[in-house]
Amino acid sequence: MQNPSIRHHCALFGIWGHNDASALAHLGLYAQQHRGQEGAGIVTTNGQQLLRHAGLGLVNDVFDEENLQAIRGRVAIGHCRYSTTGACTEQNVQPLLFSFAGGQVAIAHNGNLINAALLRRNYEEVGHIFQTTSDTEVIIHLLAKPAHQSKDKPLNHVLNHLQGAYSLLLLFSDRMVAVRDPLGFRPLCLGTLKNGAIVVASETKAFDMIDATYLRDVEPGEIVTITDDGIESRHFGGDTEGRGAACIFEQIYFADPASRVFGENVHMVRAAMGRKLATEAPVDADLVVPVPNAAQCAAVGYSHESKLPLGRAFTTSYFSGRSFIMPNQADRDLAVKLKLSVIKEAIDGKRLVVVEDSVVRGTTTRGKIGALRAAGAKEIHLRVASPPIRHACYFGIDFPDPKQLIANTRSVEEIRKYLEVDSLHFLSHEGMLSCVKMPKNKYCTACFSGDYPINVEEPVEKFAMDRGQLRMFT
Amino acid sequence: MQNPSIRHHCALFGIWGHNDASALAHLGLYAQQHRGQEGAGIVTTNGQQLLRHAGLGLVNDVFDEENLQAIRGRVAIGHCRYSTTGACTEQNVQPLLFSFAGGQVAIAHNGNLINAALLRRNYEEVGHIFQTTSDTEVIIHLLAKPAHQSKDKPLNHVLNHLQGAYSLLLLFSDRMVAVRDPLGFRPLCLGTLKNGAIVVASETKAFDMIDATYLRDVEPGEIVTITDDGIESRHFGGDTEGRGAACIFEQIYFADPASRVFGENVHMVRAAMGRKLATEAPVDADLVVPVPNAAQCAAVGYSHESKLPLGRAFTTSYFSGRSFIMPNQADRDLAVKLKLSVIKEAIDGKRLVVVEDSVVRGTTTRGKIGALRAAGAKEIHLRVASPPIRHACYFGIDFPDPKQLIANTRSVEEIRKYLEVDSLHFLSHEGMLSCVKMPKNKYCTACFSGDYPINVEEPVEKFAMDRGQLRMFT
Amino acid sequence: MQNPSIRHHCALFGIWGHNDASALAHLGLYAQQHRGQEGAGIVTTNGQQLLRHAGLGLVNDVFDEENLQAIRGRVAIGHCRYSTTGACTEQNVQPLLFSFAGGQVAIAHNGNLINAALLRRNYEEVGHIFQTTSDTEVIIHLLAKPAHQSKDKPLNHVLNHLQGAYSLLLLFSDRMVAVRDPLGFRPLCLGTLKNGAIVVASETKAFDMIDATYLRDVEPGEIVTITDDGIESRHFGGDTEGRGAACIFEQIYFADPASRVFGENVHMVRAAMGRKLATEAPVDADLVVPVPNAAQCAAVGYSHESKLPLGRAFTTSYFSGRSFIMPNQADRDLAVKLKLSVIKEAIDGKRLVVVEDSVVRGTTTRGKIGALRAAGAKEIHLRVASPPIRHACYFGIDFPDPKQLIANTRSVEEIRKYLEVDSLHFLSHEGMLSCVKMPKNKYCTACFSGDYPINVEEPVEKFAMDRGQLRMFT
Amino acid sequence: MQNPSIRHHCALFGIWGHNDASALAHLGLYAQQHRGQEGAGIVTTNGQQLLRHAGLGLVNDVFDEENLQAIRGRVAIGHCRYSTTGACTEQNVQPLLFSFAGGQVAIAHNGNLINAALLRRNYEEVGHIFQTTSDTEVIIHLLAKPAHQSKDKPLNHVLNHLQGAYSLLLLFSDRMVAVRDPLGFRPLCLGTLKNGAIVVASETKAFDMIDATYLRDVEPGEIVTITDDGIESRHFGGDTEGRGAACIFEQIYFADPASRVFGENVHMVRAAMGRKLATEAPVDADLVVPVPNAAQCAAVGYSHESKLPLGRAFTTSYFSGRSFIMPNQADRDLAVKLKLSVIKEAIDGKRLVVVEDSVVRGTTTRGKIGALRAAGAKEIHLRVASPPIRHACYFGIDFPDPKQLIANTRSVEEIRKYLEVDSLHFLSHEGMLSCVKMPKNKYCTACFSGDYPINVEEPVEKFAMDRGQLRMFT
Repeated sequence: MQNPSIRHHCALFGIWGHNDASALAHLGLYAQQHRGQEGAGIVTTNGQQLLRHAGLGLVNDVFDEENLQAIRGRVAIGHCRYSTTGACTEQNVQPLLFSFAGGQVAIAHNGNLINAALLRRNYEEVGHIFQTTSDTEVIIHLLAKPAHQSKDKPLNHVLNHLQGAYSLLLLFSDRMVAVRDPLGFRPLCLGTLKNGAIVVASETKAFDMIDATYLRDVEPGEIVTITDDGIESRHFGGDTEGRGAACIFEQIYFADPASRVFGENVHMVRAAMGRKLATEAPVDADLVVPVPNAAQCAAVGYSHESKLPLGRAFTTSYFSGRSFIMPNQADRDLAVKLKLSVIKEAIDGKRLVVVEDSVVRGTTTRGKIGALRAAGAKEIHLRVASPPIRHACYFGIDFPDPKQLIANTRSVEEIRKYLEVDSLHFLSHEGMLSCVKMPKNKYCTACFSGDYPINVEEPVEKFAMDRGQLRMFT
Repeated sequence: MQNPSIRHHCALFGIWGHNDASALAHLGLYAQQHRGQEGAGIVTTNGQQLLRHAGLGLVNDVFDEENLQAIRGRVAIGHCRYSTTGACTEQNVQPLLFSFAGGQVAIAHNGNLINAALLRRNYEEVGHIFQTTSDTEVIIHLLAKPAHQSKDKPLNHVLNHLQGAYSLLLLFSDRMVAVRDPLGFRPLCLGTLKNGAIVVASETKAFDMIDATYLRDVEPGEIVTITDDGIESRHFGGDTEGRGAACIFEQIYFADPASRVFGENVHMVRAAMGRKLATEAPVDADLVVPVPNAAQCAAVGYSHESKLPLGRAFTTSYFSGRSFIMPNQADRDLAVKLKLSVIKEAIDGKRLVVVEDSVVRGTTTRGKIGALRAAGAKEIHLRVASPPIRHACYFGIDFPDPKQLIANTRSVEEIRKYLEVDSLHFLSHEGMLSCVKMPKNKYCTACFSGDYPINVEEPVEKFAMDRGQLRMFT
Repeated sequence: MQNPSIRHHCALFGIWGHNDASALAHLGLYAQQHRGQEGAGIVTTNGQQLLRHAGLGLVNDVFDEENLQAIRGRVAIGHCRYSTTGACTEQNVQPLLFSFAGGQVAIAHNGNLINAALLRRNYEEVGHIFQTTSDTEVIIHLLAKPAHQSKDKPLNHVLNHLQGAYSLLLLFSDRMVAVRDPLGFRPLCLGTLKNGAIVVASETKAFDMIDATYLRDVEPGEIVTITDDGIESRHFGGDTEGRGAACIFEQIYFADPASRVFGENVHMVRAAMGRKLATEAPVDADLVVPVPNAAQCAAVGYSHESKLPLGRAFTTSYFSGRSFIMPNQADRDLAVKLKLSVIKEAIDGKRLVVVEDSVVRGTTTRGKIGALRAAGAKEIHLRVASPPIRHACYFGIDFPDPKQLIANTRSVEEIRKYLEVDSLHFLSHEGMLSCVKMPKNKYCTACFSGDYPINVEEPVEKFAMDRGQLRMFT
Repeated sequence: MQNPSIRHHCALFGIWGHNDASALAHLGLYAQQHRGQEGAGIVTTNGQQLLRHAGLGLVNDVFDEENLQAIRGRVAIGHCRYSTTGACTEQNVQPLLFSFAGGQVAIAHNGNLINAALLRRNYEEVGHIFQTTSDTEVIIHLLAKPAHQSKDKPLNHVLNHLQGAYSLLLLFSDRMVAVRDPLGFRPLCLGTLKNGAIVVASETKAFDMIDATYLRDVEPGEIVTITDDGIESRHFGGDTEGRGAACIFEQIYFADPASRVFGENVHMVRAAMGRKLATEAPVDADLVVPVPNAAQCAAVGYSHESKLPLGRAFTTSYFSGRSFIMPNQADRDLAVKLKLSVIKEAIDGKRLVVVEDSVVRGTTTRGKIGALRAAGAKEIHLRVASPPIRHACYFGIDFPDPKQLIANTRSVEEIRKYLEVDSLHFLSHEGMLSCVKMPKNKYCTACFSGDYPINVEEPVEKFAMDRGQLRMFT
């Protein structure tokens, strides 16, 4: 799947204690660019002021030698994003930077708060004003509240107000704070550089890029405070009774195969899912081919398990740039063609096992299947390395409206007919969970099962914060 | 004077009730660009959401067809700026746009609040957070406060908290509000278009640009609310005992000669000052020449009164662009040369009366005098159409630190020697006030006299809001 | 006049022997930007390769620190342009750079060749190919011809083929060559820096900018060769019988008032024309006002001679940027308003002498007159400091088609009615020539008189070189 | 191999007879962007003038809606490039556009002429001038020569002067001409759209993008002339005695696996080479992994033949942008890391067969091998799907200086030690040729064998045309 209907979400990166902090943050974000391509930002400090540079676009377009030099510091946090609430405008690009009684603070957030609109409304009612439409801003309002500041551990108190998914990085002039919500929806890792600097990242791929060593994950419900005196850890949130909500979709699609998230390597998990798929749904065929790019790992697994040879059906175009000028008489499959070209000779007359990582709307998968058929494939057996996606995600993955999910109301047979494949199998729910290491109750699989780890009574409207309907008296 | 040590401040523009509101706001800002060239913004509404486009740079660089189209609406407010507090960053470009319990509000401000840092500190102490370093943001915090909202006339109540200079435009989805502080430091005018639209601008030159008719000034201490039902006026602030604080420097230097501010035309005031200067300090000479560009009007007046012929000593370069690459061996007067070229043949051997509008640091005036001398001027009699500037301004004019003002500690004779002119006269304080229409006690002349219209006990530090020193507990 | 129907032409700048040659060339072009704002280029050398940077736009937009650094050299020639033949495309921006048997050569040209199309056709017929549509390229084809190279003085021989106006700068790796055509249509001056470097420029204003000393004009029909050994001069062209063709329009409109061209200061010539105008057409009035900006000098002269006070009727907008987004209901005089604002109070009820430098189509003059009338001028007496323009220019000034010249077929009285002024006078032809220093037969006044200094039998079509009609066999 | 030391060369695209010609040319170039990323251009015509837009950068950066609209036409030729002679400057971006006696002509060229410098010198000696440093320009000088034009078939005559590799597209206002040199070094194909339009491209992938049908290859020594009357074919060049020189490196590395070049599909050829490699050099191992990206096809073949499972060792970064800001203490392998991340868990403790398509300098291959070793690979057996590259290419492939080729002087064992692999095998010369369809004497394999299809007596200096050493007389 390289599906425009699921856009990647966000990546965090932090570094404490290196003279090239801003340049290393740039590299750390670049390594995690697959998690968000709409905007990027870095905030640094040298113990005095916080300095920020951020903008819309790719990491390498936002940063250059001049602006990285302008925000030099020994400490930095960075963020690249696709926002799940809040339109993608320059105003919403993170890290957000505020000042208040305690000085300056920057915040970067991966995840989605389901009670942000409610919390915001409460603050607005007592006279607070907001500049962004991001769910993240409310966290700083909570933190700045004198009643909260007077508590023994203000941040513990503040985080107890939040519901939803949040891996956070906070930067003050004297501290960097890394937080993971009590259910651990999104990944967050700690590492170290040879010079002793502490680094934090969503995925370990960022550590490999800068030659850092992985130490451990930030634990669900943990607050890690990093200062010149070292790392200090404490926990917050009540007893989750052993439950967790690690997002299984990180393993299936989001994270990079070279990364380690939730304690295990992504490629190995995906390959295991491909193997499981082969045992659940074997088929007599000539060739196993992945749909580029995310399904490559699962296809390797399927091929290894089935002993069917792994082949190649597509080449990909790597060359981006500005958006395309479509000719008037553009054939309707141009969007697929701009990404993929079929190698006709490799599949003509062949019986194919086509491996996908997931199917969301089904439209682009259908386009690719059609291209394979037009190139002469004799049989097409689609194997999807995840169960059918049937439910909305409220915790950070931007699926389309459930009505647009192909599996929301259709049976597998109906989907098979729509996609025009000879056979179709989705990995079973149990099969999927058998491929990951932690106990079942540590994962969130709500998009497949509808079983939400946090009660989501009334649908949370996205962009609920963009409203402007109330009356202000002057 | 075309003095880099006084950078112009801000311009406001508002329009209610025209389908081309954003394009007309663009023109209205362009016409007032002399008041601020560092950034510009427009916020529009169609009765629902507020839309904003803003950026650093000249009005014509910030706006283009595409982004003006993207914010189309029937109503718009605009701002172009040089900020007097708050560094000039993208974050601080106005109008600022916030949302709060009452929906969205945009604000544009010309002037300077002297108690903004204090008010901000109060809000921070009760947990409010700030995104800009502008003195303007605190006004919205005041307005959003439920205790203020519950008052009969919330805005009256809010404005009573403010000390300093402020002409304001506020935009809600259903209202535009224009305000001038009780002492009327900065100008603000009301006009109308043929289609009945209401327009508001700092200077009437903006009205001429869009073919609008001047109606009247917003009065000091007046709140003008504009809706589809028309204009509603009310007053706030207590009794000022007939006093006012119209900034005399608007007449001397800031406003465009084609504009009408504080009830009279700027060119006519400057020409009168030039005449007065001629009666106060006549001299036997061959030619009266202005220092481009602001002194042209005063030079006309001097020439008319003295009967000495008006000539031309300089040509100016109109072609902007990016900053200059200086050659290594740049002669030290290059900065002046990039702006002005001397017409040697016109002044060689001549006895000149050189008219300046004002002298701030004296450095660029000295450079221009030197260039005239090098070109062969036989005598140079400098006549300055305003008194010596000796004191800081806390109300919106960005003079340098008083220690850098040439007249702060020096006598006129000392200044004459420094500038290397044969004679020097500054317009007297009484002379200056005799050239304007309103009674003396309606003007602020504090930069000349040190007599501040509002008590300024302790010096207000600029950028006091940029601090980040307090401790935030986590 | 600030007339879009006459766009300025070109400026040349050259420097031999300074380590900052490219930066000084940048300054030299900037100082002459009034002669061409559509494109600029610099070619430098260090004795080996020639390096070029050029582009469309203002001098300061084309050059920055990085690209000037990339073409560092001890020698440079530069050009800023408005082309009189050849569409303004990137391809045609000068200096043009070629290579041929003799190595590399760069060429910059101010003027217009009337036999370029014919010469080009001759070369094409023997198989030469062309990359630009500029009349300048043919000069290099002539120079590269072996038959010409074998002559004693090849350049003399080559230049004898050219008909028309040309001030040229040629750059080889070992020489810079400055040339002025035998009739001397366009100016070209020699100067020197303190370090001994030789500089060449169209106008002396460029010398003032870089602190260079004016030495002398390049003479009509002179070839000046500059090498490390110094300056060498020789002449070409036959006997012109004492005739010359210095373009009088340089004095009237093109050149900067601070410059010296054709041996005298431009401001002084214009002021003399204004005086002459006052003696030719005196009038009883209250105020003399120039139409910004070119008429300022003539207005000074008119005022001095007539003893009528010189005033100010307009303010100008200095702030450029991208082109304007016109509101749908733009009033028709917006184009004038974007440049000028009328100071109503200064002219209301006044009898004005309005001084213009020249009238071309009459449309913008009419707009300005209308604005003055609308502002309440009681009488308007237009005085134009040049004769009526009635004929085409083939030598470098881009007048519109003669049919569009207001004076081409109309009498002065008809023009007066069209412009809606109370009286109108154009400076007489004799009056004009009495204000310049050289004998009458040294000037080209063909745009006024139709008396062309070179026989122009058949109209030379502009862009004749853009054709593509012949058949090429393959 | 994703080797910066071999940069891709050029792609051609032409279309005759479609109203969206410029937009389709854009797509056709985009589809062939892997052949050249340094610059792109399109020239169109509507039967009258030729219009050009070109620039440095990626296809999608050079073209946008506005500039494609500005050059609309029914006919277009396009080019994207990495130049093999001539520095990559804006001046050299193709198609080049000239005018001459026969009107306008545009030319686009893929390949390299080995006698261009000689031909150019001849033309310079008779007085021709050149604007580019491209070897392509001389072809137009030849074509424009009257003696050549007077021949029966001028283009045949002209092409007989050229030595080297050239696939050409020429555009006149009434014709498009496609040419392939007599030995057929570079590919060139003909296709057709449903509306009857004729299309030409270097690779068939461009046809797939725009839904065109492949007709046939342009034959070596064929001139195809396309007009509104259809296609006309003729041949030139003498008898090549059955020999050809199709570049085998197109099959190994350059062309896209989805394309058909020299009559067969690239993926199938590479997969066959991988199979052959497995039979030539089998090894006992756990996993076959390709070095991204070009070796994927060969790895598929190796796996299929050897029955060893195909796995994945790397993930790639797709996100480009501007060049990177390197931190001061950058570890030395950062360049590799910016492109590739190793999946440690997939290879830790494994015996790997690593498949490369080719080895040029060996430096980046060494970096990748080192990364695999550091990730825990137990054994690394490198299999290269082409013979050792030992000789320079004079026909369009930009290998580095032969001295920098790792195989130029080193034995296979020496290379094995340098790369630090456990075993190393290069595909044999015979093995390679057994995988392609045409007879051996139809291919150029000179980079492996040193057996050049055209006599290359003296080394042809690149950039020989950039010289500027001769003396030009003035």
